Amino acid sequence: MNINENYLNLKDSYLFALVAKKVSEYKAQNPGKEIISLGIGDVTLPLAPAVITAMGDAVAEMGRGATFRGYGEYQGYMFLREAICGYYGKKDVHLDKSEIFIGDGAKSDLGNILDIFSTDNTVLIPDPVYPVYVDTNIMAGRKIIYMNGNTENEFLPLPDSRIKAGIIYLCSPNNPTGAVYDKGRLKLWVDYALENDAVILFDSAYEAFVRDRELPTSIYQIEGAKRCAIEFCSLSKTAGFTGVRCGYTVVPHELTRGGVPLNELWLRRQTTKFNGVSYIVQRGAEAAFSDGGYAQIKESIGYYMENARLIAEALKALGIWFAGGENSPYIWLRCPDGMSSWEYFDALLTRANVVGTPGAGFGANGEGFFRLTAFGDRDDVKKALDRIRNI
Amino acid sequence: MNINENYLNLKDSYLFALVAKKVSEYKAQNPGKEIISLGIGDVTLPLAPAVITAMGDAVAEMGRGATFRGYGEYQGYMFLREAICGYYGKKDVHLDKSEIFIGDGAKSDLGNILDIFSTDNTVLIPDPVYPVYVDTNIMAGRKIIYMNGNTENEFLPLPDSRIKAGIIYLCSPNNPTGAVYDKGRLKLWVDYALENDAVILFDSAYEAFVRDRELPTSIYQIEGAKRCAIEFCSLSKTAGFTGVRCGYTVVPHELTRGGVPLNELWLRRQTTKFNGVSYIVQRGAEAAFSDGGYAQIKESIGYYMENARLIAEALKALGIWFAGGENSPYIWLRCPDGMSSWEYFDALLTRANVVGTPGAGFGANGEGFFRLTAFGDRDDVKKALDRIRNI
Repeated sequence: MNINENYLNLKDSYLFALVAKKVSEYKAQNPGKEIISLGIGDVTLPLAPAVITAMGDAVAEMGRGATFRGYGEYQGYMFLREAICGYYGKKDVHLDKSEIFIGDGAKSDLGNILDIFSTDNTVLIPDPVYPVYVDTNIMAGRKIIYMNGNTENEFLPLPDSRIKAGIIYLCSPNNPTGAVYDKGRLKLWVDYALENDAVILFDSAYEAFVRDRELPTSIYQIEGAKRCAIEFCSLSKTAGFTGVRCGYTVVPHELTRGGVPLNELWLRRQTTKFNGVSYIVQRGAEAAFSDGGYAQIKESIGYYMENARLIAEALKALGIWFAGGENSPYIWLRCPDGMSSWEYFDALLTRANVVGTPGAGFGANGEGFFRLTAFGDRDDVKKALDRIRNI
Repeated sequence: MNINENYLNLKDSYLFALVAKKVSEYKAQNPGKEIISLGIGDVTLPLAPAVITAMGDAVAEMGRGATFRGYGEYQGYMFLREAICGYYGKKDVHLDKSEIFIGDGAKSDLGNILDIFSTDNTVLIPDPVYPVYVDTNIMAGRKIIYMNGNTENEFLPLPDSRIKAGIIYLCSPNNPTGAVYDKGRLKLWVDYALENDAVILFDSAYEAFVRDRELPTSIYQIEGAKRCAIEFCSLSKTAGFTGVRCGYTVVPHELTRGGVPLNELWLRRQTTKFNGVSYIVQRGAEAAFSDGGYAQIKESIGYYMENARLIAEALKALGIWFAGGENSPYIWLRCPDGMSSWEYFDALLTRANVVGTPGAGFGANGEGFFRLTAFGDRDDVKKALDRIRNI
């Protein structure tokens, strides 16, 4: 038996492990110090009451013979796909329920979607980047071309007609940079994809954090995108579902390549290698999209975004360049005084007892930058910012 | 962008669609008739009270700030992996918790595991067979060799030293045939795999239905299996989790190929393309393995197995050859009077108003056979058997 040798080309991801190691070493040497993390990529507020009620009811249903449910629909229960269609309707995006696939999270679908593409496609990936886009393609042996995100392009790289690629990753609002494509720039990508017969994998996991009504919250708000883009969404950050696990992927019927509808290929992939999301979780997700549930969720998002505003305000006052924080839970800052990412990490840890994430961990263009997140407790955020001001 | 052309080699699976079509046509023509299904592959009894209580508590925890949980451990929560280690201990199989991976069901893991193997491996698959083994390998373009299951080998094909394969699928208790490998015959497969450097993918989804204490319920009860086998288990049929979604996969540390531990490869695959199972579901699964919970689950299994006993008794009285039903929820019978699988399907449907599954749908060797399942309601099973007796 031969293993998939492409796995041997993966680099070990030391980023979060090294962060954890440095923090625990510092703690051991300085037992009295209180460390505050602004590096956390996980939500901290509890689930919305509407979601809790819906999941509690669903659990009870599963305990009674008359209401028990076994295998669900392959693409997800109709009640949830209807709720998601309604959600898209408010964005002026009109989808058919058969274009929506319920999954256990954007990460799974972003990895598994590659199954339907040939390994001979060249892949275009922004740098800095969510490492999963890179690793999943290395595992399949695909050729990767990076596109540079930097302060000149506001960490929003644009297409270069000289570069040819079959698969393009875009993440907007971006993790880690917090940058958001406006409609004009996103249109350039849609046009490029249509011209080059490429497919855009659009990671929309943070769309619910966009507050500027002029910014797109779905790539399908751009003319032509249904013919070239697959969109990945998640309830992880939107509704605090990181531990509940639910996301959805949109594959429009108009999207065909070589005469084959990608919707059919993805349906075949999912019916063969997946068996749906827990009924209980799908009821929770449905509640998240209800009017009452969505209002509760928006409150949590508002709490996080107030954290982001406080962080942004402090950075502005300190004269530190940053992106994000207005329409995204991530703040991406340039390390002060020409420090490298890890130098700034060490300075923040030892002098302010604050933890963040070194930008260099997200790719070569991340060197000299640093990521803060808005997912912490309000009092902790305030305390951390006071300490940063004082160093 | 080029699609994965291997997908175009997949055959459409008409089996269950054609069954449904024939049933609905018959119903339309015969509106007064009551149709009973013995073809159902899904559980029908509600979840055990211990599971319901645990999941209800977990939902409530997720609604309070102090007990809310975000991202879980990649391989699954330690509490659940400990419970599963304890379950294996009762089988005299000793596993480390790092050898257990919690997933959303055996179907997902059986498909996704192929990611870690090169596409140049030849695959050995029994026929008749669960169609997913075949389709997942066609999607990757692997060469497939079939091994014949038939009445001579009791639908338990044995290794042939002239055939070389890198990946071997075994399912015991088997779906669709209900046949179970005894320790001697399973040892022949372990020896073959060790000699040929092959890896056995052992689908153990129905292990909880084995009542004969001499029969193995884990391949690791066979000497040497930890060096050549990956085991896939599911709570779908064991605990009625078809709509809840939870399974587990065992990759022993001793299992290496080309010097690479497959446990590390699978961990890398899962951390890159998966983000764990819902906390709520994992608490339910933990409860299923508790003493009280397991006793409740065993009651449901006992109910289904009494159905199986009644079906087997009726077939014996009618002189119809069959396998399974004693240590498996599936009964695999030879169609009477030399009928083909679909002829018998039509006869049962029109003359007894009973629905089953034509064996021909599971592969060439299934022609002339028929699958019944034990997952129905007791009164329906009795009524169906009365009708079969009368035709």
